[in-house]
Amino acid sequence: MNQDILNELIVRNDNKIVFIVMDGLGGLPMKDGRTELETANTPNLDKLITKSVCGMLDPASPGITPGSGPGHLALFGFDPLETQIGRGVLSALGVDFELTGKDVAARLNFCTLDGDGKVSDRRAGRIPTETNLKLCEKIRANVKLPGVEYFLMTESEHRAVLVIRGEGLGGNINDTDPQVTGAPPRKAEGEDPASRKSAEIFENFFAQVREVLKDDHPANMVLARGFAKFDPLPTMEDRFGLRSAAIAQYPMYRGLARLVGMSVLPKPDTYQAMWESLQQHYNDYDFFFVHFKKTDSTGEDGNFDEKVKKIEEIDRWVAQVESLNPEVIIITGDHSTPSYLKNHSWHPVPTLLYSKQCRPDRVTTFGERDCNAGGIGRMATKHLMMLAMANALRLKKFGA
Amino acid sequence: MNQDILNELIVRNDNKIVFIVMDGLGGLPMKDGRTELETANTPNLDKLITKSVCGMLDPASPGITPGSGPGHLALFGFDPLETQIGRGVLSALGVDFELTGKDVAARLNFCTLDGDGKVSDRRAGRIPTETNLKLCEKIRANVKLPGVEYFLMTESEHRAVLVIRGEGLGGNINDTDPQVTGAPPRKAEGEDPASRKSAEIFENFFAQVREVLKDDHPANMVLARGFAKFDPLPTMEDRFGLRSAAIAQYPMYRGLARLVGMSVLPKPDTYQAMWESLQQHYNDYDFFFVHFKKTDSTGEDGNFDEKVKKIEEIDRWVAQVESLNPEVIIITGDHSTPSYLKNHSWHPVPTLLYSKQCRPDRVTTFGERDCNAGGIGRMATKHLMMLAMANALRLKKFGA
Repeated sequence: MNQDILNELIVRNDNKIVFIVMDGLGGLPMKDGRTELETANTPNLDKLITKSVCGMLDPASPGITPGSGPGHLALFGFDPLETQIGRGVLSALGVDFELTGKDVAARLNFCTLDGDGKVSDRRAGRIPTETNLKLCEKIRANVKLPGVEYFLMTESEHRAVLVIRGEGLGGNINDTDPQVTGAPPRKAEGEDPASRKSAEIFENFFAQVREVLKDDHPANMVLARGFAKFDPLPTMEDRFGLRSAAIAQYPMYRGLARLVGMSVLPKPDTYQAMWESLQQHYNDYDFFFVHFKKTDSTGEDGNFDEKVKKIEEIDRWVAQVESLNPEVIIITGDHSTPSYLKNHSWHPVPTLLYSKQCRPDRVTTFGERDCNAGGIGRMATKHLMMLAMANALRLKKFGA
Repeated sequence: MNQDILNELIVRNDNKIVFIVMDGLGGLPMKDGRTELETANTPNLDKLITKSVCGMLDPASPGITPGSGPGHLALFGFDPLETQIGRGVLSALGVDFELTGKDVAARLNFCTLDGDGKVSDRRAGRIPTETNLKLCEKIRANVKLPGVEYFLMTESEHRAVLVIRGEGLGGNINDTDPQVTGAPPRKAEGEDPASRKSAEIFENFFAQVREVLKDDHPANMVLARGFAKFDPLPTMEDRFGLRSAAIAQYPMYRGLARLVGMSVLPKPDTYQAMWESLQQHYNDYDFFFVHFKKTDSTGEDGNFDEKVKKIEEIDRWVAQVESLNPEVIIITGDHSTPSYLKNHSWHPVPTLLYSKQCRPDRVTTFGERDCNAGGIGRMATKHLMMLAMANALRLKKFGA
């Protein structure tokens, strides 16, 4: 949506929007020919859907399987094919690192170099996370980068994240990972002056790491991918005039919420804590992004029955939300994660929108085949925020 | 639709398109959980829909509530977010004024200035329309603008429309309405040379009006908003090769039809007169835009039962049209106006398209929830003209 037009239309009022994301919600039929959502016993969602409008959303574009970044950007109203987040930035968000506008981030892999300086294992034999932690500590103690700050964080196994922070840095830098064994690491080179400045700093870092880790075979070097400068996105306040808060347990989603200027509420350890957080902060914000992770991770495990159970738990959670009487309740996902595929997929995401002024359709059960017949039809996810705004009566008429 | 591609595809033939717009057609469930259209007894529309394809149309974009201008531009095949009509121009259309390419229009409010020249009432106590008419007459008799023509027209109560006509005028001028009381009127200033020329002329007008009305408290001044240069749009003939005529009772819709180059047929006072007009001119045009207003005004009044009755009257009207055997009949709206909201809304508009070569779906009743299941699905309104053209066999194959 054109921001100039949108700015003319936005109304501020007290109507609340509760936007509930079940990560990887959509599935595929397995048992008895039914999907996870169709199998789950969801009396509360089914009751809510009878007074809701529902439909099927394409996060990016038909056929495109989105990662968590694009999936959430679409939910937050961006076109994820136009607004992209660099991989390094996503990795930094994923370890709960608070990026600033002076930061360039990259994903690192510990790797093995042979005697000729060629990569013999791009993942250093998948070292255990504990080894990774020790190596990062050793690097931090010995590698110095004059003129910039740097942050090195363990992710898991051979994976880590590197951020450098300084003035006038760019992120258009090629991967140093050669993608094949038998070749040396590639030299990091910048495409423009700011990126050349960063590339020199990164090359200095890699040279020192090589020296520091020379006796740490198999993890005697690092390879970098996905260099990216962090450019803060326009906030939910800027774009929609919404004071927004995120309730999420996992760092990636807390980071994605921070990326669009949401207040990230203290990390809740349980679903009960998520509910208490929503109640506690209910009067302080207009918009609540509530993120449930387990529907995705059970799907990625191929654990159909566990994904069903997680959906049933969230069904009970949603029933509580109705007692707060928000103007708009949305239940959707950032993408599908069918247990059948054990992976994210391109299938559209079943979605429900409740408000007093929605136009209910004839759907009475929350499921993929049910939502196919819903009043939202099949729509790009990026429009969902506009429907949320309209149903919260937060948009004026366009034109006379 | 890209005009260069379209130009290659257009075929001229004798197939007629009758495009019937029920203003504000879509509704929301109220009585017995049904909408106005679902409640109305529409035997003729229901019969027609069994051999039609139907669906739900978004006039501007999901969540956007369109005014009449954007709603009709979409019906005429424009993207209303890209092609916008200035407020002053719309107001001039609304009083049935025939604009030319030399015109700049603005909306005026009569207002009250206090002894210090500050606005004490932005609407001059909502003076009666008769007072407005007399004041406009007085201004016309006493205010002279050298070098340009001007036209001042009463709208209703404190509202009027001002048009100046001359060479090289622009319309990028700020509102003089300060939007608050206690401040003086703002000075009209142009953003570019042509608009500065207009702004000077308007300032001369306002200075003279202030002198002429000095004893007419509470209506002793005017405030202007929505200055806009009139730029004629490409016509229905230019874009679709259609000789087009409008049958409409209300000035705004006659004006919108004129804006896209339609012949506007003499104003019909009754639905019977609309039918006679259609018959009388049936052989002279390819495309007929027929506009029914009352479905919108009853909706804005929140009068569910009256809106139902108006739909039932139009149902009988449509039955007559079939006797003319047009190649294509379309029944739709420019936006929804649910009686529940007493206002235009963002909800998609139920739409029916009949032709001998449409692909009928399984829908057998014309209603919102029925159209959700239609073969058109949920689509942007701007594409409807292309479906009309295709179904009139007026488009060749694209590419070999």
